[in-house]
Amino acid sequence: MFSECPPSRPRVTARDRLLDAAVRLVRENGYGATSVDALCAAAGVTKGAFFHHFASKEALGIAAAEHWRAHAAGLFDHAAYRTDPDPVARVLGYVDHRAALIAGAPAEFSCLAGTMVQEVHETHPGLRDACRDSIHGHGDSLAADFDAAIAACGVTGVTGIGLARHVQTVLQGGFVMAKASNDAAAAQEAVAHLRRYLVLIFGKGDGS
Amino acid sequence: MFSECPPSRPRVTARDRLLDAAVRLVRENGYGATSVDALCAAAGVTKGAFFHHFASKEALGIAAAEHWRAHAAGLFDHAAYRTDPDPVARVLGYVDHRAALIAGAPAEFSCLAGTMVQEVHETHPGLRDACRDSIHGHGDSLAADFDAAIAACGVTGVTGIGLARHVQTVLQGGFVMAKASNDAAAAQEAVAHLRRYLVLIFGKGDGS
Repeated sequence: MFSECPPSRPRVTARDRLLDAAVRLVRENGYGATSVDALCAAAGVTKGAFFHHFASKEALGIAAAEHWRAHAAGLFDHAAYRTDPDPVARVLGYVDHRAALIAGAPAEFSCLAGTMVQEVHETHPGLRDACRDSIHGHGDSLAADFDAAIAACGVTGVTGIGLARHVQTVLQGGFVMAKASNDAAAAQEAVAHLRRYLVLIFGKGDGS
Repeated sequence: MFSECPPSRPRVTARDRLLDAAVRLVRENGYGATSVDALCAAAGVTKGAFFHHFASKEALGIAAAEHWRAHAAGLFDHAAYRTDPDPVARVLGYVDHRAALIAGAPAEFSCLAGTMVQEVHETHPGLRDACRDSIHGHGDSLAADFDAAIAACGVTGVTGIGLARHVQTVLQGGFVMAKASNDAAAAQEAVAHLRRYLVLIFGKGDGS
């Protein structure tokens, strides 16, 4: 979902390295194709260390989804657009910030949680719910800005939470299309249509 | 991507049964978690029969993506909206038709190609391209209707192929969100926003 690696920590533990390995390998290969052996090799830890920290691959997946959400929050909490007094500018600022993060190979900018949930939605309910919480927990933070924009512009027929979820929907779809064409441009085009939609909804009132 | 099963054929071969099993199992579990053994068991064929028809699991995946595209085409070619003289009504008719197919568990209405490509985009280029062709081959058939709608309404800033791809983008994203919440309503909401976007773009001219 975001291209940057998590910021370096003062003390990188085996657990941290396994979480970072899960983010990288699952974005490259999916959850099913990522074995515990491959995770251990990528993290430079023993299988014993793996099972000291995680009871199963699913338990690591659940922790990785939460790790991913915390990472996402850090990327946006202090972005400049967050302090714009105009709520329409804030939601468009978020969209522009997301567009700026789409670069390189799809594995570098696509979403860990969106990738995992494609595979585990029926077979691993705990991991599915962790993916849902990761996607919603980040995306739903936009709902208040959308509610303010809806009120400021007198828009009817949409809700703040509905638009916040749709932003994540289009991003997830953009990642699938970028993977299919092996080209970041497909995700950029998705975001451009999303922005156009929001401008059509809010553009005339423009928050004033 | 479509909830109906492929229409029954006069003579169902082992190859057909393997393709149908691949559609079902990959939509339920993903590509990585679907083994050749599981495919053989679901199709009721021997491993010898599998390798008589397909050189590898990837070869079956490629054939399944094409099988899926042909199935999709059959669902839409004779739909009533296809003959509407108004191109805006035709594109909205397609969207409404898609909405009507979203029901039940996510494995029943989500997209085989969109699921596979999440996992194989880096590791299996041949299968990735087959997924791209499946998604684009179906979705791009809308481009001519969008071009006609754009011309009829004097819309600027968008292209027929760009809008056709965006329709598939939102659907793919809706499937991810439906899997995350284990609820078809998330995909329905995605389609409702898509429809609103298209009405905002074309609504005023309305093709006349």
